[in-house]
Amino acid sequence: MKENVPYYAVIFTSTQTEETEGYTEMANKMEALAKQQKGYLDIDSARNNTSTALSASLGITVSYWESLEAIKNWKANTEHLFAQQKGREQWYNWYNVRICKVEREYEFKLD
Amino acid sequence: MKENVPYYAVIFTSTQTEETEGYTEMANKMEALAKQQKGYLDIDSARNNTSTALSASLGITVSYWESLEAIKNWKANTEHLFAQQKGREQWYNWYNVRICKVEREYEFKLD
Repeated sequence: MKENVPYYAVIFTSTQTEETEGYTEMANKMEALAKQQKGYLDIDSARNNTSTALSASLGITVSYWESLEAIKNWKANTEHLFAQQKGREQWYNWYNVRICKVEREYEFKLD
Repeated sequence: MKENVPYYAVIFTSTQTEETEGYTEMANKMEALAKQQKGYLDIDSARNNTSTALSASLGITVSYWESLEAIKNWKANTEHLFAQQKGREQWYNWYNVRICKVEREYEFKLD
């Protein structure tokens, strides 16, 4: 994806607990739901499978949005609020959320 | 890490080729070198080990910097320029770079 700047990014960085029951289903459900929101642009997600001394299976999900308002609405979505609560109670040791304005973007593609 | 906003983030999203020789050594070297740069704040990295129909082993690396100038200097670093060229010639099918201003940040930690 290459969008017209500026737009917005939510960088969600997390480490998980050992209690992963229900996590994948919820993550898939939330991704599908995010895609239906007004102002949604894209989402990318990656998680290291192995823990190291420095990072306990770090995951990074970045979602992209047209505006700060779209991000605010998504954060306040009722089903998403429930998922956030479950995440704090069960799935995450730690997470960090950063709201960013994307000011410049460039892309490389192998010929 | 929780920094004082605003600061800057470089979101580097990539998919790799089959040619991974020398990649890990270079990635570690570049991470160590980035940490020595003026204005460097932090770096997070995650890569999916398995490819899916939708994503060929997507990786996300986000580095954090005090200023746009620090990002510009890091991009122009001689050893880093060499690594970028090797990346385009050998290691990456595709990558995307986004320069972002981090406007807000919050964190959750399990008690």
